[in-house]
Amino acid sequence: MSHAPAYDPSNIFAKILRGELPAHKVYEDDRALAFLDIMPRCPGHTLVIPKTPARNILDIDPEDLAYVHKIAKTIAIAGKAAFQADGVTIQQFNEEAGGQVVFHLHVHIIPRHLGVPMKPPASAMEKPEILAEHAALLRAALGQ
Amino acid sequence: MSHAPAYDPSNIFAKILRGELPAHKVYEDDRALAFLDIMPRCPGHTLVIPKTPARNILDIDPEDLAYVHKIAKTIAIAGKAAFQADGVTIQQFNEEAGGQVVFHLHVHIIPRHLGVPMKPPASAMEKPEILAEHAALLRAALGQ
Repeated sequence: MSHAPAYDPSNIFAKILRGELPAHKVYEDDRALAFLDIMPRCPGHTLVIPKTPARNILDIDPEDLAYVHKIAKTIAIAGKAAFQADGVTIQQFNEEAGGQVVFHLHVHIIPRHLGVPMKPPASAMEKPEILAEHAALLRAALGQ
Repeated sequence: MSHAPAYDPSNIFAKILRGELPAHKVYEDDRALAFLDIMPRCPGHTLVIPKTPARNILDIDPEDLAYVHKIAKTIAIAGKAAFQADGVTIQQFNEEAGGQVVFHLHVHIIPRHLGVPMKPPASAMEKPEILAEHAALLRAALGQ
């Protein structure tokens, strides 16, 4: 039984997976990809996506969702270390009403510092050289 | 290697798990429990927690985290149906800087309607009779 509209392979994360768009990648294996949000709500804001086509939590295979969250945990620990953060906020939005903008399931991993609020969603594009530097910090914290 | 402070078994979710505090339960098995947030940000706001002691994403066993998110998916689908919602917002906060208030890992599942913002966190305690009604709606949607 389907609980979500059909998957649309023209979304930008599908294009990143197909190599049609670039991304500041921090982790990749045969089932998941992690890369930086280009409009970070805090430095180090990373997205983890499944490689399988899945619109969101409503239609994803439960095993794929489970795997994405295992990778999110690894990224959360690396992000806390790389950015000397005090905590981590995890968010995952489903359908427009739930806050979703790109319709390929993604988990937000946002390193947080005490007393520093997140920027509003999609408030400012980060400079590519800053994103490249942050991706390198995360890859180093992941031992890659 | 530990990335989080030690687990404190005096937190209120541990007390719910031990039966020392009541909760409006919507789902339970040998590894996870789901119950309503008593200060819902939207009607049907549910929390899923592991039965194993885990402070947050930093210290939880990856398999337990994966399991909690599989249950979160089931609750998300049930919540969307039970409340005729348009979407679902998933949040999971780690350490005070990350937005965490109760230090037993919990995943927020929040049914959402288009154009209806979430209330701020912990803004108002819901009436027990409303929570009981909402828990019954969710259990029915889960086929329980």
